[in-house]
Amino acid sequence: MGDSVNRRIVLARRPQGEPTPEDFRLERAPLPQPGPGQLLLRTLYLSLDPYMRGRMSDAPSYAPPVALGAVMAGQTVSVVAATQVPSFALGDLVVANSGWQDYGLSDGRDLIRIDPGLKPPSYALGVLGMPGLTAYVGLLDIGQPRPGETVVVAAATGAVGAVVGQLAKIRGCRVVGVAGGPDKCRYAQETLGFDACLDHRAPELAQRLASACPEGIDVYFENVGGAVLGAVVPLLNLYARVPLCGLISWYNLDKLPPGPDRTPQLLLAVLRRRVRVQGFIIFDHQHRMRAFRTDMAAWLQEGRVKYREQVLEGLENAPRGLMGLLHGENFGKLVVRVSGE
Amino acid sequence: MGDSVNRRIVLARRPQGEPTPEDFRLERAPLPQPGPGQLLLRTLYLSLDPYMRGRMSDAPSYAPPVALGAVMAGQTVSVVAATQVPSFALGDLVVANSGWQDYGLSDGRDLIRIDPGLKPPSYALGVLGMPGLTAYVGLLDIGQPRPGETVVVAAATGAVGAVVGQLAKIRGCRVVGVAGGPDKCRYAQETLGFDACLDHRAPELAQRLASACPEGIDVYFENVGGAVLGAVVPLLNLYARVPLCGLISWYNLDKLPPGPDRTPQLLLAVLRRRVRVQGFIIFDHQHRMRAFRTDMAAWLQEGRVKYREQVLEGLENAPRGLMGLLHGENFGKLVVRVSGE
Repeated sequence: MGDSVNRRIVLARRPQGEPTPEDFRLERAPLPQPGPGQLLLRTLYLSLDPYMRGRMSDAPSYAPPVALGAVMAGQTVSVVAATQVPSFALGDLVVANSGWQDYGLSDGRDLIRIDPGLKPPSYALGVLGMPGLTAYVGLLDIGQPRPGETVVVAAATGAVGAVVGQLAKIRGCRVVGVAGGPDKCRYAQETLGFDACLDHRAPELAQRLASACPEGIDVYFENVGGAVLGAVVPLLNLYARVPLCGLISWYNLDKLPPGPDRTPQLLLAVLRRRVRVQGFIIFDHQHRMRAFRTDMAAWLQEGRVKYREQVLEGLENAPRGLMGLLHGENFGKLVVRVSGE
Repeated sequence: MGDSVNRRIVLARRPQGEPTPEDFRLERAPLPQPGPGQLLLRTLYLSLDPYMRGRMSDAPSYAPPVALGAVMAGQTVSVVAATQVPSFALGDLVVANSGWQDYGLSDGRDLIRIDPGLKPPSYALGVLGMPGLTAYVGLLDIGQPRPGETVVVAAATGAVGAVVGQLAKIRGCRVVGVAGGPDKCRYAQETLGFDACLDHRAPELAQRLASACPEGIDVYFENVGGAVLGAVVPLLNLYARVPLCGLISWYNLDKLPPGPDRTPQLLLAVLRRRVRVQGFIIFDHQHRMRAFRTDMAAWLQEGRVKYREQVLEGLENAPRGLMGLLHGENFGKLVVRVSGE
């Protein structure tokens, strides 16, 4: 492609509560020029992930915020379009951190090579990438499920949740998902093989969850917070584990929810039932990548892990994609196709 | 002693919120008679501990509730007053579970022998007993403090908190206590050797805690909940550990506190700073008793651990003692002297 323009989406202002279209701005800039020791990368796919909401705020968090006017951060699958780094050749496919733009520069040190046989290469942003590793580490290393135990996961058809539930099935657990709407629930049961999946939009979630978990809950993979957590707490078993991976229902909070204060309810359960609640961020667990890739490639090939992607066409749709993701509007791992291979 | 009457304090009704004198009833019953394979135990000391509030309620918890009309449960230091168990002799001192009464029966299997050289034997209910072991396991095994880290403990002069802080000092940590009133705070600093101790009754606890912990908090030994927890959460460091041992400020709750709901504040901090919150109950860690006893006996002898006891005279004062304990009115480990040696 002979583009001379680099489209990029920058953070126009910090959202108050839910992000709106006015928080983003599409700009056109000259094509960046790689200097000595640099690569020019053309973006094929951009990953959209819940953590991006946190990067838009300047509240203290685990990664620095995106600066106002700066390109929105994000992982990409990119192709080497020009190279002044000897170890990379034109056409090489990599996982990069180019963010929300057509082209990015890199010195090569933050890139992960993608096997050219991987079809589609966007899987490197999902089941074989960071979300897959998040599920693997969070469930297996932190959640430590044992055969016969009950595992509950919300956002059950999302990029992480779908893998969590399938790995728990591989480990011999009873798996109960929670998802938004009957289509996702049907998919979780029929395609992903969950034992049950509950629609959090239907009434009486707490009662339905209790019925679906007659022996209580041993592992709750937490990625949503809110009402699902409220339904889970009374069902936690002795020595339950709660890997705390995300809290998507609270990312748009601009003030604390109304009372009562439910903190005592949570902590009294953690105390009495000797529960372990452990926050984790996947950046701390990169040493597990090799084992993860080997295991996951085998599970995919054997058909023991299924994977669903939702592809949005065009960089300009990334803001809408992220806003929808924060409401659970996606169905499967959400990526944006920015340019063709 | 030639008593023919056994005074006992029974649970008269279940408390709503704070226990009141009417929730207890002092009864006189005939002296229990040991049958074959049984011991008669005379109570010397009764331990009063915060967990007793939980046993008075019939909400699900880690131990079954005390039945209405039954003797209040509790650990005792007792002396063998009659024996039909060959391995015990008259006059042997034991830690028993006789509860709130002058005399109890046992088959011997739940008894722990006390070294006759231990003066006073009531230490077996405190620094050398369950509260000491709770501090040892909770801080060392679960909190895992490293030299130079900052450890915060509330109820800092209580049976558990005082040991937690002194063990953290032995481990080379900066130790900040929180206690009720200037006398306790002075004692924690001057006698127990804490680096700082803050009065939770004085205003602006959060600001004072931040000043006392300029490098944040690495281990928060949680035994109170409430306002202290609220002050701690913003200061938790990356990879902080929160051994969750008790929540005394919430034991008298009969409904959830008013809003806002602070659960997101707690869990977002746990997520972003990869915190581990782990509930534990000392009954699960009895295998550490031998190592604990060896270590603690040495520390006491070397003067590296100081211990303070508050002794109430007379079984009839046990209800008042427990009610005061739940308000932090005790100063040191609270025991009741039920009869003389």
